[in-house]
Amino acid sequence: MKRFAIGIDIGGTNTAYGLVDDTGHVYGEGVMSTRQYPDVDRYLEELYIGIQQLLKTVDCRCDIVGVGIGAPNANYFRGTIENAPNLPWKGIVPFVEKFRRFFPGKPVLMTNDAKAAAIGEMTFGAARGMKNFIVITLGTGLGSGFVVDGHLMLGHDSLAGELGHVIVNRTGRVCGCGRKGCLETYASATGIKRTVFKLLADHTEDSEFRRITYNDLTAEMITKAALNGDPLAAEAYEYTGMMLGQALADAVAVTSPEAIFLFGGLAKAGKYIFEPTKKYMEMHLLSNFRNKVKLLPSGIEGMNAAILGASALIWQQQAEREA
Amino acid sequence: MKRFAIGIDIGGTNTAYGLVDDTGHVYGEGVMSTRQYPDVDRYLEELYIGIQQLLKTVDCRCDIVGVGIGAPNANYFRGTIENAPNLPWKGIVPFVEKFRRFFPGKPVLMTNDAKAAAIGEMTFGAARGMKNFIVITLGTGLGSGFVVDGHLMLGHDSLAGELGHVIVNRTGRVCGCGRKGCLETYASATGIKRTVFKLLADHTEDSEFRRITYNDLTAEMITKAALNGDPLAAEAYEYTGMMLGQALADAVAVTSPEAIFLFGGLAKAGKYIFEPTKKYMEMHLLSNFRNKVKLLPSGIEGMNAAILGASALIWQQQAEREA
Repeated sequence: MKRFAIGIDIGGTNTAYGLVDDTGHVYGEGVMSTRQYPDVDRYLEELYIGIQQLLKTVDCRCDIVGVGIGAPNANYFRGTIENAPNLPWKGIVPFVEKFRRFFPGKPVLMTNDAKAAAIGEMTFGAARGMKNFIVITLGTGLGSGFVVDGHLMLGHDSLAGELGHVIVNRTGRVCGCGRKGCLETYASATGIKRTVFKLLADHTEDSEFRRITYNDLTAEMITKAALNGDPLAAEAYEYTGMMLGQALADAVAVTSPEAIFLFGGLAKAGKYIFEPTKKYMEMHLLSNFRNKVKLLPSGIEGMNAAILGASALIWQQQAEREA
Repeated sequence: MKRFAIGIDIGGTNTAYGLVDDTGHVYGEGVMSTRQYPDVDRYLEELYIGIQQLLKTVDCRCDIVGVGIGAPNANYFRGTIENAPNLPWKGIVPFVEKFRRFFPGKPVLMTNDAKAAAIGEMTFGAARGMKNFIVITLGTGLGSGFVVDGHLMLGHDSLAGELGHVIVNRTGRVCGCGRKGCLETYASATGIKRTVFKLLADHTEDSEFRRITYNDLTAEMITKAALNGDPLAAEAYEYTGMMLGQALADAVAVTSPEAIFLFGGLAKAGKYIFEPTKKYMEMHLLSNFRNKVKLLPSGIEGMNAAILGASALIWQQQAEREA
């Protein structure tokens, strides 16, 4: 009998879900609105119906080994989603407890998207066989998942891995968290937009970006411009890589990883982000660590990475049980 | 039959060793010179003779379960001491391999002193029962040991925990590592001396420290002055706590510990170091972590802590085998 884990990726706009086998093959996937369901119980019913429909499309007898969920502000230990600003459910939602009723006797595990990406990278991606590594997700913000000795670092209350909120400049940019100079105000899709606007202020050269409003500008446009040879876009990436590379040098000193993976939108800029990040990381590393730590692209990027990562929570648990 | 682990603490000047039972009781200890033995093989023979003499003084039949060693620049995985600037043995010394010959069939484990302190705190000290915590050793430099999910974080090459070399000010004080602004240039016995001299330069008030050379000044003198109400000494501690507290806020964001322990000379200043460190840590913490992370004194400080910590490497391994 074919065995599947259900992987669910909950975003502020949509929720994607899929059936994933233990080799990382996705046998079917579905998508539904998150935003349309301010009532979490209604949302869970719809999600369950969607999953049932998906299961019918799979042309074989199958065994569901468990349900893995990636969600913003997820608490792994408590199975709760806590005060997620971009989700329609306010306060502390006992998400896993509610959803478990639909899957009696099956494990339901939930963590945030960056931690799911790290587990996905270890289970199906480029970190297979690695025991100590970091995954950095460069999305709207900066998320991170640290794997230490083969296990996801959760910390005392499952909040470990907030590298996006390490302070890189105490008098720097205002962050959504209410403080100043957090790494994600520089190294993220939003961060590089802010950097482009800083460069427009600092310099006088003409640039296509002088004809675009802040609200219309996207990180994709900056990446495209960099790939087309636009010097201001390249400089924005250089600055982003500098801030990220310096912060990674500190993260290496604390956790001594074998590799760091860059994942998400900004990583698609290829050498424009990898080269400055690597250069400044090496420049700021303690000598013992120099020329040792690999900076790599994700091995699951683009391949339903979020669904794979969520399902990997279950496959990882299975592997540990069977070990 | 009574079971002992041998704990060995290798310092640049002296080596201390003792017999420790599984409750942390030290049944006897000895000390020998490190510096007098530029030949590591001669050193190991003397150390073995010392341990044999110690065993004779213990008035019972006993079983040695293993040998734990704390040493600067120790590599846990390879059992080597690597390019330790303050030890007489240059290059990479296969220390464990050499010493194992004296204890056939017994485990010999070695790590650096800060990691040994963390294992000691977990096994015998104030971190008993904790799964996620940090020990900060405030000695000549700043060392740290991170325990993650009940295990010492070693990282890919056992070099994890170099919190002393996280950069807190990119244009700051020159560090012995060749870079600038490392945490240990502020938060350590040497760091607070540098801070006193900075304050003497910045201010005009008289102070007992204006009559002492840099080379004669010790951290103990600063601590004593602070405890006696000297305002400049108190200000030096305030500044030290600010730099340490800010850096700990970042370490908390990455690792989410239950508690942080301050260990070593500066920790003896009590409220003069704990209060500013706690204040600035809380001030700079991401809101999710505020008022959650305990800042505590070591529970083994003063009690042969280094010997206890080294022996705990063995007792910890025993506990895991027997679990």
